[in-house]
Parts: sequence; C-alpha cells; structure tokens
Amino acid sequence: MISIVILGSGNVAQHLIKTFGKLSKQSNQIVVKQVYTRNPEALRGILNRDKITNHTGNIPEADVYLIAVSDNAIKEVSSSIPFSNKLVIHTSGSMGLEEIDTKNRSGVLYPLQTFSKSKAIDFSTIPIGIEATNEKDILTVKQIANVLSKKVFVIDSAQRKALHVAAVFVCNFVNHMYHIGQNICEEHQIPFEIMQPLIEETADKIKILNPKEAQTGPAIRNDQKTIDKHLGFLSNDIEKNIYNLITQSIQSHGKKL
Amino acid sequence: MISIVILGSGNVAQHLIKTFGKLSKQSNQIVVKQVYTRNPEALRGILNRDKITNHTGNIPEADVYLIAVSDNAIKEVSSSIPFSNKLVIHTSGSMGLEEIDTKNRSGVLYPLQTFSKSKAIDFSTIPIGIEATNEKDILTVKQIANVLSKKVFVIDSAQRKALHVAAVFVCNFVNHMYHIGQNICEEHQIPFEIMQPLIEETADKIKILNPKEAQTGPAIRNDQKTIDKHLGFLSNDIEKNIYNLITQSIQSHGKKL
Repeated sequence: MISIVILGSGNVAQHLIKTFGKLSKQSNQIVVKQVYTRNPEALRGILNRDKITNHTGNIPEADVYLIAVSDNAIKEVSSSIPFSNKLVIHTSGSMGLEEIDTKNRSGVLYPLQTFSKSKAIDFSTIPIGIEATNEKDILTVKQIANVLSKKVFVIDSAQRKALHVAAVFVCNFVNHMYHIGQNICEEHQIPFEIMQPLIEETADKIKILNPKEAQTGPAIRNDQKTIDKHLGFLSNDIEKNIYNLITQSIQSHGKKL
Repeated sequence: MISIVILGSGNVAQHLIKTFGKLSKQSNQIVVKQVYTRNPEALRGILNRDKITNHTGNIPEADVYLIAVSDNAIKEVSSSIPFSNKLVIHTSGSMGLEEIDTKNRSGVLYPLQTFSKSKAIDFSTIPIGIEATNEKDILTVKQIANVLSKKVFVIDSAQRKALHVAAVFVCNFVNHMYHIGQNICEEHQIPFEIMQPLIEETADKIKILNPKEAQTGPAIRNDQKTIDKHLGFLSNDIEKNIYNLITQSIQSHGKKL
C-alpha cells in the first residue's frame, strides 16, 4: 500500500482524486490520505470535507506527495510540504524535476491527456510518462502509474518536454482548428455536428496511415485555384494567415520528407 | 431504379464504386452501368474490365452522370459526355454548378469526408450535401445520396463552399498538426502511437463541449513562460511561426467570444 497526499484541486487533481476514489473500492494499493488545496470549495461533491485541508500545517505524513497544480505554483507548493526526504512528484509536462524543493526527492507522473472538468475520462487508457532521480523512486512512481493506467513508460525530462510540445500541436492547436471550423459553419447557418464524422475519421485514419500519407486537401495537391478561392472566402485576417502558413508548411513537408 | 455512369477513378470515385457495388447486392435502387476513366488500370481489382471504358464514345445512356474527378477536370469531363438534357452531378466541395456543361442539367453530391485509397470507409455515416437547379433533380440526387448515407442535407453553393473551407481546417490542417506532432516525437525517440489517446479524446470531447469550452493548453491560460519554453524548444522556423500564430489566434478568440 502506498499512501498519498494530493496537492491541488484543478482539472488534473480532480480527475486523479476521482480515479483513485473509484480504484480504492477495488483494492487498497493506493490510499489518498488527504488533499491539500487553497480552495476546498473546488472539491465540493468530489471528496468528503474531512479529507481536505487548506492549511499546510495539517498535511499528514505519507509515502508520496502528488502535486497537481498549475506549472507556476509547483515550486511554492512543493516547498510548503512540512516534511523532508519524502518522494514528491508533479504532473506537469513542461516543468523539470528541479521544481521540487530539494529537501525532498523528486519525480514526475505526466498523464498525456486533455482534461476538462465536465467530461469524465477513462484513466486506464491514458499514457503516463514517469520520471524520478533514483531507481527505487522510479519503481514507486511506476507502481502508482500502473494502478491508474495500462500504458506507463519511463521517459527523461527532454522527452517529456518534447511530448508536451507535440501535445500542444495535436491537441490544443487541433482543437483551435475545430473552433475555426465551427465559426465558419455558424457564419453560414450550418450545424457544426455535420463536421463530426470528418473529424473522427481524420483522427482515426492515422492509426492506419501515418500523417504524411493521410494528408489530403488542396495544399498537398498544390491546387492553387482552390487555395486562392478559400483565401478569398475567409474574411478574418488571422484565419487567412493561418490558412496561408499551414498550407505553406504542408507543401514544404510534402517535399522534404 | 436509377442508372448511373461514374466518371473518374480517383479516391472518391473508387469509394463510390465500391459502395455502390456492395449496395447493389442488397437492392437494385442504383445500377452503375459503366465507369469512364482515362486510366482503367486505376480500377484493377475494383471493377470488372467490361464495366470500364476510356473512350467517351462508349459512354452509355443513363439517368445520371456522376463526375468524381479533380476539380480542374470537371469542366472538360462534363463537356465530353455525349448526351444532352441529362442530370450531371459532380462531387466537389469547392466548385459551382456552372462547371457542368450547359447542354445538361447540373447537380452536386458532396460527401463531407476525407478519402484515402488504402482505408475503407463506411459511407452510411458520411454527411452528404446535395444541390441541383430544379426540384425534380434535387429529388433524384437525394435518392442517390439516401442510398449511400443516412445523413443527407440540401445546401446551396455558398454553404457548400463554407463547408469545404471548414473541412480544410478540421481535417487537412488538423492532420498537419498530427504530422508536426509526429516529427517532434520522432526527433526525441518517442513512438507517435503514444499520442493516439490524446488525439482521440480531443476529437471526442467536442461532442460534449463546444471547441471554445474544450480549449486547454498554455495559449488559452496565457501561460507565457510555457509558450516561451516551447518556442525555444522548436528548431524549425515554420513550426515556430505556426506555434506563434495559432497561440495568438487562440488568445484573440478567447477574448472575442
């Protein structure tokens, strides 16, 4: 059994708390002793009030301290843990191990997924990249990650940063492409749901083809007439710039690779 | 029963030929009398040789001529049909009805999907936007479309063009974001499959949340430290420019809406 204190109450923290809560009904491999957050209200309905504290002085002793707060707050939260020589891990894709105050041992458990409060998620399918400074701690982090997910892999900080940047492209930027698509549809009284099969097929296709092979559309066909038509159609300058730049990038990748 | 001649042998034509072939075993609502293509070899293994011609003089009389060729070839192919006052429809998202030679009646059957030769597709889930110049022809196009798909909707040319531009963003540009993500992973010895659950969740999430609500990541959080880190991490100038521009667009949409 590994006892854990979770620090944080944002999207990732909430999904972790819910998942550990569910899993604790099946086995007692992981016990969440307490959650520390400056904002206990955020966990209303998710966790019993007696499991939550907003005083660092009340943080109990545990095997592992799991910090799931915004990147900029990791340092401060880690230094507020009133213990030393404990394993303290954060969940950030972009922050190094050095964010953890050196009075404790450091590790990372990075779930590669997009979390929104209002959408439930099956943690068992989420790839988790883990890291720690010594073998024993790697084993402990792995034990925790294995309880959450079937896809756990040990990576170093450089790989984690690469994953985080890649995730910005394949998730955040992709979602923004959906947003622009929705705007265009709505401007022409077209329900956005019509795009959903195309969106799903685009995501599905790359299980079989790699993205370079899967590329379709006017850019890769060098179909300048259609490209010009589309640019003439777009009224928003940023959208025009995005159209131009990604078209250029598709064409240069098409050549290069 | 509606008799059809298909003109073309590219991605869309091949998927249509395969789908009509399958459907003809269940009912005879649609009969593909012949396929005209300049390149019969492209249909090897897909259709019997006696159903294919590469001479316009051999094109038989039929109720409907379905042109599935590249946008720039529609005009020429349509004028080569050796009949008049027939219903001739094309499958392009971006071309108008006027591409069809005026000796015949014009229509459009636009399947909103990304087609790759090597990936099978369930046509019944593909939204099809249809258009024609008179009510009777709309009914005929609708009959054909209804055989192919459960999701058929009548749209005008302006809406079809909007759909096509939106599709470039949610499909072609999204796929390019996957491509960049893959490049970043490969540069750091990370298998790209690790991104697949994130990619699927991103596509799935917008069934429940609209893309604006679903937006996560450093741009929408105005997390300039992480943005700067990512820009420092990217070595490719086009990728840096894309990162900057989409970040700026996410932030301006975040404010505006």
